[in-house]
Amino acid sequence: MPELRKSPIMERWVIISTERGKRPLDFKREKKPMVGGFCPFCTGKEDKTPPEVLAYRDPLSTPNSPGWKVRVVPNKFPALQIEGDLDKRGDGIYDLMRGVGAHEVLIESPDHTKNLHHLPQEHIESIFWALRDRCIDLKKDSRFRYILIFKNWGEEAGASLEHSHMQVIATPIIPKRAIEELEGSKFHYKLKERCIFCDILKQEQKEGSRIIYSNEYFIAIAPYASRFPFETWILPLQHISAFEKTPTEWFPALADIMKTVLTRLDITLDEPPFNFIIHSAPCKTPDLDYYHWHIEIMPKLTKVAGFEWGSGFYINPTPPEYAAEVLRDVDIGGADDKNTTKEKVEDKEWPQKKSK
Amino acid sequence: MPELRKSPIMERWVIISTERGKRPLDFKREKKPMVGGFCPFCTGKEDKTPPEVLAYRDPLSTPNSPGWKVRVVPNKFPALQIEGDLDKRGDGIYDLMRGVGAHEVLIESPDHTKNLHHLPQEHIESIFWALRDRCIDLKKDSRFRYILIFKNWGEEAGASLEHSHMQVIATPIIPKRAIEELEGSKFHYKLKERCIFCDILKQEQKEGSRIIYSNEYFIAIAPYASRFPFETWILPLQHISAFEKTPTEWFPALADIMKTVLTRLDITLDEPPFNFIIHSAPCKTPDLDYYHWHIEIMPKLTKVAGFEWGSGFYINPTPPEYAAEVLRDVDIGGADDKNTTKEKVEDKEWPQKKSK
Repeated sequence: MPELRKSPIMERWVIISTERGKRPLDFKREKKPMVGGFCPFCTGKEDKTPPEVLAYRDPLSTPNSPGWKVRVVPNKFPALQIEGDLDKRGDGIYDLMRGVGAHEVLIESPDHTKNLHHLPQEHIESIFWALRDRCIDLKKDSRFRYILIFKNWGEEAGASLEHSHMQVIATPIIPKRAIEELEGSKFHYKLKERCIFCDILKQEQKEGSRIIYSNEYFIAIAPYASRFPFETWILPLQHISAFEKTPTEWFPALADIMKTVLTRLDITLDEPPFNFIIHSAPCKTPDLDYYHWHIEIMPKLTKVAGFEWGSGFYINPTPPEYAAEVLRDVDIGGADDKNTTKEKVEDKEWPQKKSK
Repeated sequence: MPELRKSPIMERWVIISTERGKRPLDFKREKKPMVGGFCPFCTGKEDKTPPEVLAYRDPLSTPNSPGWKVRVVPNKFPALQIEGDLDKRGDGIYDLMRGVGAHEVLIESPDHTKNLHHLPQEHIESIFWALRDRCIDLKKDSRFRYILIFKNWGEEAGASLEHSHMQVIATPIIPKRAIEELEGSKFHYKLKERCIFCDILKQEQKEGSRIIYSNEYFIAIAPYASRFPFETWILPLQHISAFEKTPTEWFPALADIMKTVLTRLDITLDEPPFNFIIHSAPCKTPDLDYYHWHIEIMPKLTKVAGFEWGSGFYINPTPPEYAAEVLRDVDIGGADDKNTTKEKVEDKEWPQKKSK
């Protein structure tokens, strides 16, 4: 019998469809090899992007030339444009404003062939430092209400360029999805005087069945109401509402958990296309007792279709307890383990068979 | 400069990104030929589906055998299951219930190769009659709160079978997306004592720039805050809240507008994959003054990526005024016109160049 599960944070229901149950090998697809060729993000092609707004580079190198490790540039085809004011206005019953905002690209490394988690842990850490620097800088602009950091990897996940990168968009209004989370968690706080995310962590730590990995400062879980197969959330273990206020000493652990989780997804699902997003407190807010920043990783294995568009519900054919068990047990010792891991994965029982 | 447009019905913002502007030929993709082979929806294979719940068939034929024109069967792999009660319960901070509901498939015709709009108008009309019959029947079940009708066509739009079909899902809770529309339009009604959809129709009829087609009882528009390129909404011109209460004499016009609009999308975008959904008043409600049933057609031309997942905003690279102009002017005289139409399409100026 399928289960209808509600997100504890907002009014979002998910159908966990065990009858359509899907294990990792059911998501097998034709893997597209890297095309290569001309790439504006590769080292030596710095003049093919707008001038950098931030780069961690060799002190002897000059801006917009080789010698960088992480580089942030404005998007050449921005969804929102940096100049001008909002000019909010009406048009009969309609409301509009000018599409003012920032749209930046963070190029994760000079190497075209490396995805985020292929990089050494300290390199990943420096990427998060660069993201933090950009958040702090963009939050100074009084026109912006929210900063969204996200990554698309793989064509099916909407990446238009192969070279691994993230994007940072600053918007003049708080996005719908962020408002839903903020309002949902504020409602919980009003009732209980507790952060809903801290409550989730406590229940998950007690139950254990949806934990994928944890270290000193972060935890990775398969959310109770996962929308997608192998959806994974990473949260700081201690309460903190804004990503850019994460203490310095947590950054190595953040890099470690991202590298571990993405590597395990890669091994389990054979390098799946994926999106991840960072949800954090909006600009112009003090530290929030009711909100907790986190990362949502969504492997792109199923297609969003009419039912999802029409209902806002999701049908997830892989129970999160099963996904967590598979991802928890992946041996990331080396690439040679791939086949062994897959056999192990195929042996895993569906969680509902075990319970009751 | 991109524009941020708000849906007049709910808190949904869309970035109309003229800088990334895309015309029909920009959406060219590799078209996958029909695979054919075994199909459980084809005539003669009636025993490969669960027994039919409804069929319009030759009076001399017997159920679950050839001789049908339109056939409705339970989904063999249902997202929700018809038996049992909801058993709503909690699990610590989490809420869940059993996945009870109906999940049916409407097979549009015995012909494997025909999409909905390839069928004669009176055949399309009978499909809408069958949908109406199923709605009326499912609404009798007191466990159900909402009936969602939708269609996925093409692999990229999530269709798992080639043979053209629609789906009907009855859910035990009103879906999030429906609640948002219902609450948004109720809010407008409280302020103005007018239906927001009727207001939209009036403004669109006055302006004309987003009208694609209309007939005696229905109108097709490119919505002001279209999420997707060439998104098209079909609405009854007169106020009516529930699809299944549509008067008999409107059905030929409904079939006509669906055939016309889908044919024009096919010609303009070279048979794009698409989803459509029908949004209607929930079960157990009287006629609603504030809500207006409608069809949302979404060609699947762009990929939903991290920004959309993280924000709930959409980036639409094709202004709806342009899409409407292109679709309005399509000559559906015959297949031979395809190339001529495309040239005409390429000549169209972006709407913003004309205004101001």
